[in-house]
Amino acid sequence: MLKEAFKELAGQMHRADPGAGFALELWDGQVLAHGAEPKVVLRLKSRDCAKQIMAGGFLGFGEAYMAGDLEVEGELSQLLRLGLLVDFDRRDLALPQKLKFAALYLWHRGARGRAPRNIAHHYDLGDDFYALYLDESLTYSCAYFHGEGCSLAQAQSNKYDHIAKKLLLKPGESLLDIGCGWGGMLIHAAQNYGVSGVGITLSKNQLEGARERVARAGLQDKVQILYRDYRDFQGVFDKVVSIGMFEHVGQKYLKDFVKRLQGYLRPGGVGLLHTIGKEKPAKADPWIDKYIFPGGYIPTLAETVEAMGLEDLCVLDVENLRLHYARTLECWAENYEANLDQVRARFDEPFVRRWRLFLNACAAAFRWGDLRLFQVLFSRGNINRLPITREHLYR
Amino acid sequence: MLKEAFKELAGQMHRADPGAGFALELWDGQVLAHGAEPKVVLRLKSRDCAKQIMAGGFLGFGEAYMAGDLEVEGELSQLLRLGLLVDFDRRDLALPQKLKFAALYLWHRGARGRAPRNIAHHYDLGDDFYALYLDESLTYSCAYFHGEGCSLAQAQSNKYDHIAKKLLLKPGESLLDIGCGWGGMLIHAAQNYGVSGVGITLSKNQLEGARERVARAGLQDKVQILYRDYRDFQGVFDKVVSIGMFEHVGQKYLKDFVKRLQGYLRPGGVGLLHTIGKEKPAKADPWIDKYIFPGGYIPTLAETVEAMGLEDLCVLDVENLRLHYARTLECWAENYEANLDQVRARFDEPFVRRWRLFLNACAAAFRWGDLRLFQVLFSRGNINRLPITREHLYR
Repeated sequence: MLKEAFKELAGQMHRADPGAGFALELWDGQVLAHGAEPKVVLRLKSRDCAKQIMAGGFLGFGEAYMAGDLEVEGELSQLLRLGLLVDFDRRDLALPQKLKFAALYLWHRGARGRAPRNIAHHYDLGDDFYALYLDESLTYSCAYFHGEGCSLAQAQSNKYDHIAKKLLLKPGESLLDIGCGWGGMLIHAAQNYGVSGVGITLSKNQLEGARERVARAGLQDKVQILYRDYRDFQGVFDKVVSIGMFEHVGQKYLKDFVKRLQGYLRPGGVGLLHTIGKEKPAKADPWIDKYIFPGGYIPTLAETVEAMGLEDLCVLDVENLRLHYARTLECWAENYEANLDQVRARFDEPFVRRWRLFLNACAAAFRWGDLRLFQVLFSRGNINRLPITREHLYR
Repeated sequence: MLKEAFKELAGQMHRADPGAGFALELWDGQVLAHGAEPKVVLRLKSRDCAKQIMAGGFLGFGEAYMAGDLEVEGELSQLLRLGLLVDFDRRDLALPQKLKFAALYLWHRGARGRAPRNIAHHYDLGDDFYALYLDESLTYSCAYFHGEGCSLAQAQSNKYDHIAKKLLLKPGESLLDIGCGWGGMLIHAAQNYGVSGVGITLSKNQLEGARERVARAGLQDKVQILYRDYRDFQGVFDKVVSIGMFEHVGQKYLKDFVKRLQGYLRPGGVGLLHTIGKEKPAKADPWIDKYIFPGGYIPTLAETVEAMGLEDLCVLDVENLRLHYARTLECWAENYEANLDQVRARFDEPFVRRWRLFLNACAAAFRWGDLRLFQVLFSRGNINRLPITREHLYR
């Protein structure tokens, strides 16, 4: 019965891409091999692990992977790609798993009081750790690649510049960055566009790191970093930006977040929301919610622009940078493997495997799955003096 | 009481833009003047006409304007702008008006059998007539203006080229144009990009006109024009485009239309939907529905991208060309006035005034009101070989 299920899964994976080589090595040594060499091999070490995968979908797979109850030989990303092609992540969970996940889901979303813990869960592991896979600016969001030889650091700088151009930043203007990370956007904007700004974050780790970086750049007079929930802030700015934060606020708070975006923007001001998105609504992936980003929800583009419409924010431009995020995550995964010794010096093996799976699974979901990256540019109210084409972005 | 209502309205208009000069001349000769010279003057010829306006909002205003029961001296667009600034178009209708309009609304939307009549209502007035205000290609949709000296004809050609670049048209590819008008897009694509295509329309007038233009360009082998409802077509194309048609299908058919877009596109193909849109959902304007575009509904961007998500169409790029449509309509209004003698030779005065109000009201709604023009680029499924930036559009 269980074996039949794996045979069927292997058949589906093969039909999804007959050229892709893979083998499933079952608990009793039987090998289900398909496609061309080189093959990625998924080795299930026990019958229990096999049951766990079939019952739990990607959550079962992820937990077995972290525990070392299964091994992947060869390209993990190739295996994840085949999984996405057959919708393995949407496999129905068994009932006990569903209940456990529902409880977890409610716990993470229940109250705004959870927000600091949810953020700390991912973002407070220490700068030394993030430095092992991010670029030197510690930019922890989708980069913007120009041409083939573009490095990750260059692509992150490009991203800040692309956003600055979309926002039409001008000397003397004020910029609010909601979820400012290590301050990369504000530092770039202050140095290159002469704006002054405020960044807010709920990560104590990022707060310190961003302040240090601002000081090192000699920008203390222009850039202020605050530990602050986006709901508790006061102020009005010429421009507002939020990069990689909307996907953390939770479905319940999407409209409220957009209302705040509007409130912090002066009438006639311009803002940009840079967020992971989807086309179809879907609950957060259980494994990602449990182990990587508690409390998050990936909004659809429709939910995003609907919320903007309700607040009289006019959508000017939407760009889907999905493949830029795939490449960004692939760079991070590569850096991570290159620095594996240092990761192992800090964390145990289940954590090492957890983070590897996170980076590779997200890269695969952007490249072959349902994740998108939308940059949504908007104005507060109808503004007739903005450029009428997007040519200025490409000069 | 009625006079008080007009005093209040005039006060609102003045507060909305204290610099704008206007005067309301009431039925008894009293003048309510505000702001600087030159003033636009709205002259109400009778108390009945004043009541009609207060009870019927823009519908009442439009009907009084057509009947000649009111006169506008000076810039009609300025008056319309002030009206939009005070939400005059959203003024509550009196109950009898509401009922009359609801019946009309249902009548226009009731059945797909209405579609040919709804289309004929606007688009079958004869090429000679449209030639009086459109450019020589008879393009009846938002143009794309580059720089200050750009003529309307050039801007329409730019628009076709902008779309062709977004669609990444290549020689040998096939293109379907749903709601093809006088064939401008297909002719441009065949001549400049070497594609072959099919255009469908529900306007007999456009059918003939488009066929003539295709023949004149010597493109009969490459471009075919059919009289066909979008629901009755069969075929699969590399690329699909629909320009200025989605806003005519009616709210009830939005999802179905998008489903067809998907069905006519091969997996991996790319499409573009060029449509008037809004941020917030709203019923069609009663005057526009009754006298200009029966059965239409202006979709929100959220409704549009939600429908695409349900059909596995991936949104790649959204551009808001609102100010281009304002300028296009202003060009049309200007051409219309320049050829007024010829319009009068064909139509009676109420029609002459009806069309003037249509062109000016739409221009104002794009420039100062809630109308937007969205170009939504999408692919059928996840395509990884498309360009990852939009630079190719601006070379």
